[in-house]
Amino acid sequence: MNYCSHCGAPVALQVPSGDDRPRHVCESCGMIHYRNPIIVVGCIPQWEQRILLCRRNIEPQRGLWTLPAGYLETGETTMEGAARETHEETGACVTDLSAYLHFDIVHIHQIYMMFRARLSRPEWNPTEESSEVVLIDESRIPWNDIAFPVIKETLKFFFDDRRKGSFPFRLRRIHRRMNPAE
Amino acid sequence: MNYCSHCGAPVALQVPSGDDRPRHVCESCGMIHYRNPIIVVGCIPQWEQRILLCRRNIEPQRGLWTLPAGYLETGETTMEGAARETHEETGACVTDLSAYLHFDIVHIHQIYMMFRARLSRPEWNPTEESSEVVLIDESRIPWNDIAFPVIKETLKFFFDDRRKGSFPFRLRRIHRRMNPAE
Repeated sequence: MNYCSHCGAPVALQVPSGDDRPRHVCESCGMIHYRNPIIVVGCIPQWEQRILLCRRNIEPQRGLWTLPAGYLETGETTMEGAARETHEETGACVTDLSAYLHFDIVHIHQIYMMFRARLSRPEWNPTEESSEVVLIDESRIPWNDIAFPVIKETLKFFFDDRRKGSFPFRLRRIHRRMNPAE
Repeated sequence: MNYCSHCGAPVALQVPSGDDRPRHVCESCGMIHYRNPIIVVGCIPQWEQRILLCRRNIEPQRGLWTLPAGYLETGETTMEGAARETHEETGACVTDLSAYLHFDIVHIHQIYMMFRARLSRPEWNPTEESSEVVLIDESRIPWNDIAFPVIKETLKFFFDDRRKGSFPFRLRRIHRRMNPAE
């Protein structure tokens, strides 16, 4: 952030009166611009014993596998956003969404909220964002080609919980990878 | 938003190529500025059978009662933010935080995440944001003077669940009040 989105004057990093950390403050109109974490919403879409995975057709991590997920928009609930992103990335309609995992990813200022969901019918297709969309069994998950640590964690929790027969809501933190090859 | 925070040129509302809704797009550098929901984090701080309530010392709803809550910052987890806000607004230190309620408040672009928590010790004080901080029993909650619908809902769920002896995680939507006197 270099300029004030309200009046167009330059901003400077300074600690506002009564605050305890630097913010972008407009040198002309005085507006304080806060930076907030961004929410990503997504689904684990199930059909019988299998789940939908998408092969990313866009950067970052193009070519690797992921669950459908994307930025929550204003004007929609978390659950609506998760269903919308699933439809946009896989062509599939989901129902029976249930809040399942919340991940704080502090170092990239993101929060992931992942829902369990069922496909309304066994229909999906490649999309602009997904070069392939496949319904896949646990035994065939490409664990070494999952696009993001948060998606790998989501899949691990899901299959572990499925074996145990219960899906408790969980709040977890994803740490920065020390070794990018991990 | 009137100006591009990156280059300072005016922005215009237009639907970017491949998108499906209007965004603020810079007429000079082309940067697309997305607007995202903001996360508020807070606590229901308990000590024995009572909870802490704060009387708001700032607008909006100055003079009415609330639970400690505020905007999640970048650089902290959801849980850290809830504990920080509780300390800032009540002077109290909380421990054993447990994710409890998630509210989508679509019409104001906010998400509230409320945690159950215990006071580490029976210490609290008025603060810049709270003219009074009180440890209060369910029977003395000022139901007609609660600052926000989301806080009233949080309190209702909490006391109902306490009677039932279990606190399941819940995801709910808060609708715009049709009648402001509600």
